[in-house]
Amino acid sequence: MKKFAVILAGNGVFDGAEIQEATLTLLSIMRHGGSYEIFAPNINQHHVIDHTKGEAVNETRNVLTESARIARGNIKSLDQYDEVNFDLLIIPGGFGVAKNLCDFAFKGADCKVDSDVEHAIRSTHAAGKPIGALCIAPVLLARVLDKARVTIGEEEGTIAGIEGMGGEHIKTTHGEVIHDTKNNLFSTPCYMLDANILQIFEGTENIIKAMLSSLE
Amino acid sequence: MKKFAVILAGNGVFDGAEIQEATLTLLSIMRHGGSYEIFAPNINQHHVIDHTKGEAVNETRNVLTESARIARGNIKSLDQYDEVNFDLLIIPGGFGVAKNLCDFAFKGADCKVDSDVEHAIRSTHAAGKPIGALCIAPVLLARVLDKARVTIGEEEGTIAGIEGMGGEHIKTTHGEVIHDTKNNLFSTPCYMLDANILQIFEGTENIIKAMLSSLE
Repeated sequence: MKKFAVILAGNGVFDGAEIQEATLTLLSIMRHGGSYEIFAPNINQHHVIDHTKGEAVNETRNVLTESARIARGNIKSLDQYDEVNFDLLIIPGGFGVAKNLCDFAFKGADCKVDSDVEHAIRSTHAAGKPIGALCIAPVLLARVLDKARVTIGEEEGTIAGIEGMGGEHIKTTHGEVIHDTKNNLFSTPCYMLDANILQIFEGTENIIKAMLSSLE
Repeated sequence: MKKFAVILAGNGVFDGAEIQEATLTLLSIMRHGGSYEIFAPNINQHHVIDHTKGEAVNETRNVLTESARIARGNIKSLDQYDEVNFDLLIIPGGFGVAKNLCDFAFKGADCKVDSDVEHAIRSTHAAGKPIGALCIAPVLLARVLDKARVTIGEEEGTIAGIEGMGGEHIKTTHGEVIHDTKNNLFSTPCYMLDANILQIFEGTENIIKAMLSSLE
């Protein structure tokens, strides 16, 4: 049974991990015979957004603590991640990826990646293991790795950011997966497109199947 | 296209809606040709649990505001629910159902149901429309309706509570659905059993299919 590490960025599309993408990633992993462990960095969120209004509120929340809600408490701090224990790594999307795991939402191509996230990506990549990224998460790969070939769909501002970091962007639509065979990266746009939950499931199914197939 | 109203109890298994049950309910609705609108009561949660530790913390969170994270902001206050606009009603589980939508977690068979939740159940039932309940949510039906015939799996304490409210309990295992044909209620145990996300998906698929089939 192939084992995935899943990195979450909180719990909610506007300030954390996108819940549907995260949940359906877990479902697709198990549907295709894989297993998973969930990780998140033990850091405070950039901010907390009231999801009924889209406005920031005066609260402090921790990325690990909030991600634990999606994980039903079964989660580890990302500083405990060791690539030797896993066959694949995957990072669902949500604004938390661009606000907590890095600061792409504020700095664009000049963004800095959280040190534990950077270590997880670098060590997994160095071991030649597949890394998957949904939605906005490919910006992490473009920042950390050399010449990452990825997709976030078709949003021009984000594409310019990826290209500004030396990455290559391929435009895609719902459910399509780009495989960077040189770096062994997989990406699919999910909610970077105007999508519904059926299309997100198509994306998680296709990326998990592609990642697992690459190990056969 | 048949339209579901979905009632959420927050966002996180220990103090809100169980995220996987909620998300997979939405997925199953769309997979079987339905559509949905999401509701939650505009009330404070009973408490806030740190899901890494299972311990209460000194914070206040609102059920509607937190449920909005699962709904990606597309949610209404439950006091706006009118059964005439929907064909079916469904309530995913999580401790929030027994702590926020009612106080079954603390009072058992003597529990009181939130007035908006009670109104939603009573008005939908009076119109003869199907009502679905996952996991612990059948306790709401047992409290509000007369002689509800439901399942929460096999947990004896909860079964005693249901029977203490005049309900009838049928023991079930993963993915099984009980249809109370007299009251037009559907229930399935989900995480009231020791389960994984594949088994939760089996439960949401089966209950949504059963509910929609009853309208054909």
